[in-house]
Amino acid sequence: MQDKTFLMIPGPTPVPESVMLEVAKHPIGHRSSEFSKILENVYQNLKYVFRTKNDVFVYTASGTGAMCAALENLINEGDHVLSLVLGNFGNRWVKIAQSRGAIVEKIEVETGAVIDPEVLRKRLAEDTEKKIKIVTLTQSETSTGAANDIKTLCSIIREHGALSVVDGVTSVCAMECHPDEWDIDVLVSGSQKGFMIPPGLAFLTANERAWKVYEECKHPSFYWDWKAYKKSVNENSTPFTPAVNLITGLDKALEMIKKEGIDEMNARHKRHCLALRKAIKAIGLELVVKEDKNASCAITSILPPEGISVPDIRSTMKKDFDIVVANGQNALKDKIFRMGTLGFVCDRDLISAIGALEATLYKLGYNFELGKGVATVIKELKE
Amino acid sequence: MQDKTFLMIPGPTPVPESVMLEVAKHPIGHRSSEFSKILENVYQNLKYVFRTKNDVFVYTASGTGAMCAALENLINEGDHVLSLVLGNFGNRWVKIAQSRGAIVEKIEVETGAVIDPEVLRKRLAEDTEKKIKIVTLTQSETSTGAANDIKTLCSIIREHGALSVVDGVTSVCAMECHPDEWDIDVLVSGSQKGFMIPPGLAFLTANERAWKVYEECKHPSFYWDWKAYKKSVNENSTPFTPAVNLITGLDKALEMIKKEGIDEMNARHKRHCLALRKAIKAIGLELVVKEDKNASCAITSILPPEGISVPDIRSTMKKDFDIVVANGQNALKDKIFRMGTLGFVCDRDLISAIGALEATLYKLGYNFELGKGVATVIKELKE
Repeated sequence: MQDKTFLMIPGPTPVPESVMLEVAKHPIGHRSSEFSKILENVYQNLKYVFRTKNDVFVYTASGTGAMCAALENLINEGDHVLSLVLGNFGNRWVKIAQSRGAIVEKIEVETGAVIDPEVLRKRLAEDTEKKIKIVTLTQSETSTGAANDIKTLCSIIREHGALSVVDGVTSVCAMECHPDEWDIDVLVSGSQKGFMIPPGLAFLTANERAWKVYEECKHPSFYWDWKAYKKSVNENSTPFTPAVNLITGLDKALEMIKKEGIDEMNARHKRHCLALRKAIKAIGLELVVKEDKNASCAITSILPPEGISVPDIRSTMKKDFDIVVANGQNALKDKIFRMGTLGFVCDRDLISAIGALEATLYKLGYNFELGKGVATVIKELKE
Repeated sequence: MQDKTFLMIPGPTPVPESVMLEVAKHPIGHRSSEFSKILENVYQNLKYVFRTKNDVFVYTASGTGAMCAALENLINEGDHVLSLVLGNFGNRWVKIAQSRGAIVEKIEVETGAVIDPEVLRKRLAEDTEKKIKIVTLTQSETSTGAANDIKTLCSIIREHGALSVVDGVTSVCAMECHPDEWDIDVLVSGSQKGFMIPPGLAFLTANERAWKVYEECKHPSFYWDWKAYKKSVNENSTPFTPAVNLITGLDKALEMIKKEGIDEMNARHKRHCLALRKAIKAIGLELVVKEDKNASCAITSILPPEGISVPDIRSTMKKDFDIVVANGQNALKDKIFRMGTLGFVCDRDLISAIGALEATLYKLGYNFELGKGVATVIKELKE
């Protein structure tokens, strides 16, 4: 039905009406005092959401832009980077590091698994010469729905002395993340995720240790250059003409997040994901991430039942129920489907999504106890 | 008055209602067939507006992003770049080139002047060893309102053999620009200018000669990498999650441009700028760019009358008439003010702007024949 689409992909995600109404306003001058006031608010509230005392930079870019903004301010040709890879987005760090001439080593796990802290500890202990300058990692791997124990991993990295650079693109807002307490040196995220605004903005925060490495960077990229953004944050400004409409939308969305509370927002995402996982199992489907403790609170990857194809599930969900779920990426295409519960998602959405999934599987001839998924969600949400 | 602001700055510029209504819609999935169709349209129509047979890439970024996307796909450390500088934005090319380790030489002119083709010809003739790999230039210098004769300059560059990289951020849509016929090798622009949409998108087109230099680039920047965008254009897709809402707005704006016709749109801008310049002179104010043939059709820089300050002019224009005009940048701050006539501007807007400027100067005590500016505009527009 027209205008009824509900996005359950890992971004873009649903946007609240009050945010869209801000986005819909005619752009104002980015050097006006009016816009400066909005930026002041935004910069302040981003610190709250990122749980950091450090500045949070706002880039006009896709989430990948912030990933570039991390490494392109840190890496010199020939630097050693260790990348902890859970899937497609972990590999993106590898590609960005290589594009700057870094020597990249990977620790890679199979689909749905997470990094074993002991494996990391062992590898870093071997690096007695301290050649490894940067370790890249992912909190919530969007391609599989697996989530690393960032706190433990970053404490191991800190012990070694390398810089930890964390992809929080889908995790910030959805999952607990404490860069200052957990020794995360650089953390990035994107707007069309937990932030509940349309795509086009990306965020980065870096601590003092990261700034020291920045100072050694021979060719920081002009567009992402931290120094220019740092100066702008101090002046409630931006270095270049930003996506004004998205920033006014972000201002509204951050107010909403503050009102809900970041702890409460994290808890809501966790509740939803755990309920979804139970319901999927109750229906008899298999999850890509086996253990709850390794599951992302933003996105859940599911294997289709035997004999039913991912494209059929996706097209029926869309056609019959106006719900968009994501396909797998690359090698996982048509092997799994992914349901996002990211950002502006309430309990009703979860119930209707599981109901629609049940109806879809029922239509496609899957043999299961109809209603068991919804019953499970209802019970779980009441816990 | 609330919601009455009219932007006469060189971006953001006024946005048509039908474009804002597209921007205001809830984001759709960027991998959906629906969005792919929009992209197909957009890529096709951008070729029309850019007057090129080559692909036009769409970056989620400020206009400066497209400038980085030009040089960060071409320059290796130690490359020689010649930058033709009319002002602040000409200098931006210098900074970007330097950030990649290039050796940059400048030909710089005084405020309001343009590059003398003979000076360029002489400098390039001296380069018998063909050390100069890239020449950067600006069609319309936003900080002064001066416009180069790109056609002549690029033909001289082609004769030498260097690559011409042109900033068309404020000029594309506003001024005639024929990259294929004029031997422009790389041309960039931004969305919040003549394209009549909010800021957040940037455009780049490169020809075969530029692609050959790209192939030699050791470290193309991951986010701007031409190869990834080329592949995406062929698939009616984007490499990363784009600013979906701005692209649906762009789709609508490009349809409007096509309907008006790009030649007609250029002519409208030229008519407006020439009428504005005559009116300014009729009021007795001085223009920064002395000759019409060197004037940008996007932005006009004006010296305030003696004894009246730029901040007073700007604040009165804003407070009394809800018109925002720009201050000068850097050393020109408070020395000049700039009036943009870029994008969604009709004859009525021009009349009201000159009327408001007259009223402002009248209020601030400037002694002149009231009404002469408006009379001049009316007569000029009728020509």
